[in-house]
Amino acid sequence: MKATDAITLSLDSLWVMVAAILVILMQAGFAFLEAGSLQSKNAGHITGKQIITLAVSSIVFWAFGYGIAFGDGNAFIGTSKFFLNGVPSGYDSIFFLFQLAFAAVSLAIAWGGFAERAKLAVYFVFGTIFVAIIYPVVGHWVWGGGWLSTLGMQDFAGSTVVHLQGATAALIGTLLLGPRIGKFVDGKAKTVPAHNIPFVFLGTFILWIGWFGFNAGSTVSTGVATKGYGQFFGYVALTTNLAAAAGALGALFAAMILSKKADIGAMCNGVLAALVAITASCAFVEPWAAIVIGAIAGAFTYWTSIFFEGKGLDDPIYAFSVHGISGIIGTLSTGFFAAPKLVELAGVGKPGLFYGGGLYQLGVQALGVLAAFAFVAIASLIVLSIIKATIGLRVSAEAEKAGLDISEHGAYGYGETEAK
Amino acid sequence: MKATDAITLSLDSLWVMVAAILVILMQAGFAFLEAGSLQSKNAGHITGKQIITLAVSSIVFWAFGYGIAFGDGNAFIGTSKFFLNGVPSGYDSIFFLFQLAFAAVSLAIAWGGFAERAKLAVYFVFGTIFVAIIYPVVGHWVWGGGWLSTLGMQDFAGSTVVHLQGATAALIGTLLLGPRIGKFVDGKAKTVPAHNIPFVFLGTFILWIGWFGFNAGSTVSTGVATKGYGQFFGYVALTTNLAAAAGALGALFAAMILSKKADIGAMCNGVLAALVAITASCAFVEPWAAIVIGAIAGAFTYWTSIFFEGKGLDDPIYAFSVHGISGIIGTLSTGFFAAPKLVELAGVGKPGLFYGGGLYQLGVQALGVLAAFAFVAIASLIVLSIIKATIGLRVSAEAEKAGLDISEHGAYGYGETEAK
Amino acid sequence: MKATDAITLSLDSLWVMVAAILVILMQAGFAFLEAGSLQSKNAGHITGKQIITLAVSSIVFWAFGYGIAFGDGNAFIGTSKFFLNGVPSGYDSIFFLFQLAFAAVSLAIAWGGFAERAKLAVYFVFGTIFVAIIYPVVGHWVWGGGWLSTLGMQDFAGSTVVHLQGATAALIGTLLLGPRIGKFVDGKAKTVPAHNIPFVFLGTFILWIGWFGFNAGSTVSTGVATKGYGQFFGYVALTTNLAAAAGALGALFAAMILSKKADIGAMCNGVLAALVAITASCAFVEPWAAIVIGAIAGAFTYWTSIFFEGKGLDDPIYAFSVHGISGIIGTLSTGFFAAPKLVELAGVGKPGLFYGGGLYQLGVQALGVLAAFAFVAIASLIVLSIIKATIGLRVSAEAEKAGLDISEHGAYGYGETEAK
Repeated sequence: MKATDAITLSLDSLWVMVAAILVILMQAGFAFLEAGSLQSKNAGHITGKQIITLAVSSIVFWAFGYGIAFGDGNAFIGTSKFFLNGVPSGYDSIFFLFQLAFAAVSLAIAWGGFAERAKLAVYFVFGTIFVAIIYPVVGHWVWGGGWLSTLGMQDFAGSTVVHLQGATAALIGTLLLGPRIGKFVDGKAKTVPAHNIPFVFLGTFILWIGWFGFNAGSTVSTGVATKGYGQFFGYVALTTNLAAAAGALGALFAAMILSKKADIGAMCNGVLAALVAITASCAFVEPWAAIVIGAIAGAFTYWTSIFFEGKGLDDPIYAFSVHGISGIIGTLSTGFFAAPKLVELAGVGKPGLFYGGGLYQLGVQALGVLAAFAFVAIASLIVLSIIKATIGLRVSAEAEKAGLDISEHGAYGYGETEAK
Repeated sequence: MKATDAITLSLDSLWVMVAAILVILMQAGFAFLEAGSLQSKNAGHITGKQIITLAVSSIVFWAFGYGIAFGDGNAFIGTSKFFLNGVPSGYDSIFFLFQLAFAAVSLAIAWGGFAERAKLAVYFVFGTIFVAIIYPVVGHWVWGGGWLSTLGMQDFAGSTVVHLQGATAALIGTLLLGPRIGKFVDGKAKTVPAHNIPFVFLGTFILWIGWFGFNAGSTVSTGVATKGYGQFFGYVALTTNLAAAAGALGALFAAMILSKKADIGAMCNGVLAALVAITASCAFVEPWAAIVIGAIAGAFTYWTSIFFEGKGLDDPIYAFSVHGISGIIGTLSTGFFAAPKLVELAGVGKPGLFYGGGLYQLGVQALGVLAAFAFVAIASLIVLSIIKATIGLRVSAEAEKAGLDISEHGAYGYGETEAK
Repeated sequence: MKATDAITLSLDSLWVMVAAILVILMQAGFAFLEAGSLQSKNAGHITGKQIITLAVSSIVFWAFGYGIAFGDGNAFIGTSKFFLNGVPSGYDSIFFLFQLAFAAVSLAIAWGGFAERAKLAVYFVFGTIFVAIIYPVVGHWVWGGGWLSTLGMQDFAGSTVVHLQGATAALIGTLLLGPRIGKFVDGKAKTVPAHNIPFVFLGTFILWIGWFGFNAGSTVSTGVATKGYGQFFGYVALTTNLAAAAGALGALFAAMILSKKADIGAMCNGVLAALVAITASCAFVEPWAAIVIGAIAGAFTYWTSIFFEGKGLDDPIYAFSVHGISGIIGTLSTGFFAAPKLVELAGVGKPGLFYGGGLYQLGVQALGVLAAFAFVAIASLIVLSIIKATIGLRVSAEAEKAGLDISEHGAYGYGETEAK
């Protein structure tokens, strides 16, 4: 290898390593977002569960998931590279860590729908199956050379692969589990007050930061060899940040208009919804479009959160709106906003409708959304139904009321306060 | 471009990207420092406000501020690059993010003076004007090729540009707002107990970490081409860390002597004061001088915090002492301590008094401090007076007593505890 | 210097800088792990103490410790490079920061044994001596060209140098201080409930993240020039992460079997124990072995925590089990699991017993463990006994009961709650 090529490979490896660390850090973001938004009696459980998520994902994705997603195989599934067999060390180890971090994020999103009432065992059993099989199959379709990749689906960092998948599992989980005790009184949703808004902020902020790794890291390169668009990861970071900012403001104004209050939790969810939406499109759209996409995602998912809750769905931290609806918005957005010069650079798919690209790309994006949603919904429904029929999904009413900290782990999360 | 030049550009881009992420992370530092130091009834508001700060800064600095600071123009103001027009992607996108992070830090500092009593709307209105116009004008003078840059002002990472500017706005804010209800009883300052010292620690520690990006990142290069002083960002990180350490100890000992207690909040502020002071001088001074500068800044600003409070100023987290007084100390310090070989390397200004450099540099530094202070003070006074006369600066006494969480956002920051 | 060599040096510098920042971040990990696991009345003190740890370490390691560890000298001690005299700027400044971060981690570990009852002054006095002399002497033996290095001891990132040293000082500290008031009632250990499990999670998670810098950073290179094994830091990150995951599960299952509860604190300690164990061996073992080592360390140290507590040892956060016993497990593990091709790559020592390498390496590892333990135990015993006899080690019973926040620092860590 030429010296400059060796250096470029090490340089790219370093960027992907930094990005992988940022994406792994997002587990802490989900932990604090979820724990802070919910009740103190479950705070120990929720944060502790995030360690389980990363631990299970690390082992299972190494053994199975990575091979199914990125192994050679056919248009539907990969069938090699299990246990990283035959995968060279170095850059490939780092790429594995980066992809593992994505799988763990998808699983963390799924858990949102299970919050405050699922049995601890469910996190092990469903988590293992999700990371071993469900997530990597769709990953293979879009990123591993599968059939959606062949069609030219544009999902740069995973609005569909990571977010919609996790959100779909969350939706099925929340439907099968049913609402938390006391959430609906006479058919009307009751607000469960966030026990710690500074934690909600911490979680949101960590996720915002982590998303620089998530999106800009998905270049998996520092762009030394990218013609005419060097350091493209910088451009991706720019669109990502603009979208997040617009999402915060979009959601905050939506809350002020619809609910007459400057709701901090809503604003935080707006940041995340915007980041989810820009995830597919960050590499394909111009800065102004990133702002539009972010603002729409932030404002619209605030409304869908309220809408679904009004229909009797108890999705405790609105995982389906924030990651599912926004995942769909983001995936479809490139069908409208993908700019020709950026599409050419990425070499994936075609320009969007607003740039005269016609309906092709929008059609592919819609097909990808439908396929991913249908597959994950059906697979999750089967697996969770079996779990429900055997070990059971939900803790007893007594355990739920006492809180999962004491009932599932034997100790309060706030050992001094709760004990009183 | 030669292969080695392309690689160097990508390598430098990666360092600036990492640094930008670290500086953006500082927003979380300010959030926890401020929220932890103050009352629990405002903790949700304070942390949520930090999201607003970053969101508003991201949009406004992209649209206007960056052009005024770094656009081509004259000695006083930049007049191009609005909306990043004509700015190439790649390295320049990353440099923008890095500079945006600085602007957002300056704004975060300003808010310190507004804490626990300003209306939510003020954060939007003044924030927009500060980031669009006020901050970037002084930025242009010093870093954008303006008149202070021509004179050779040494402000490596922004003791004046970032910290003194933010602190001056904080000072004007706190003067126009007046003290919090109950802060002064019979003319004597009453201690408002920090509601969460672990949060104060978290904020301080995040800021310490973030400062490696702030100062060492201001090299905007990994120094491949720097003659005889390769990897200069390492040297800057070294002086920065030594100063922070000395500031912690300086402030702690000052508190033990002056107040007979090992005050943790004071020590944390000492870390920050030292970091603020070394910000201008990190690239110009030797390690021993970094320790001296840090220790003086830490100890002295502890004293000024008490002094100003004794004079009836209610600056809730001592923003003017920590960022203003220390910003001045730091900016002037190169006039004394700038070492000839480092000045030569940086190619900015002249050596300091203690190295036989005479009074020139000290004079330039003093002029820069005065000009920045006067401009920001007058501009902030005008803008804030207009806001005060129209929409108003301060919430009602009732809202202040209830806390901004419930009065401005409609929900307690600690939803379970406060509701009782 | 050739252009490609200059670039490689800057690239490696950037990786070590990122790693150094990650390892410095671990101070926040220890702060939250310890504060969260213990009583709220000491939470301000514990977190604030971590600032003191980093501040004292920064100054003292710069002035003395680095020279003793990495200065030229003899097989037992380095005798140059004090105050970084003669050390070039750039890469070497960054290497210093990286090593400083390690020293500060070792000191942070030591403090675990002192928690909730030691005088504030002890942290200054013993901290200074530990970082100036004790830690760097063993560092010199293993990493600075000393006698254990000559024998080929394999301690890649410091299971012995960093963790066992800190843990040994913790053990001596906890023995000399004696148990906390009320810990043992009629000879039976009473559980002190963790006051904040989310903080325990935060601390653990920060440490997991930081360990990517700790272990993978210990390559101190991005491997451009590493023959046939480019980007070796990626491989080290992989084994590190697998071990951590296995440790979480190993400890959780051990707790479920031995104590019939899914103890979150135990799982968190399992993560750390596994990371401590893989620290020595991360560069020498295959992925499956990393999982075995991590699982054993996680499960076994759960048992030793209970065992030592049953014997009347009050080591408040089980520092000796997590960092000492696991440090020993990790150091010995390469004697069993070191794979020939990895040993050849590292160029240190010989393959392990399971690969037909015989008993040589195991013997060297055991000798290193014994020597480090004996030296630190004796040195700490002498220093702490002198402190005990002069200024005293332990606060008064009254101060301990009131909590160190108010008694040592004059303010409660939770100023509103505690004051009631």
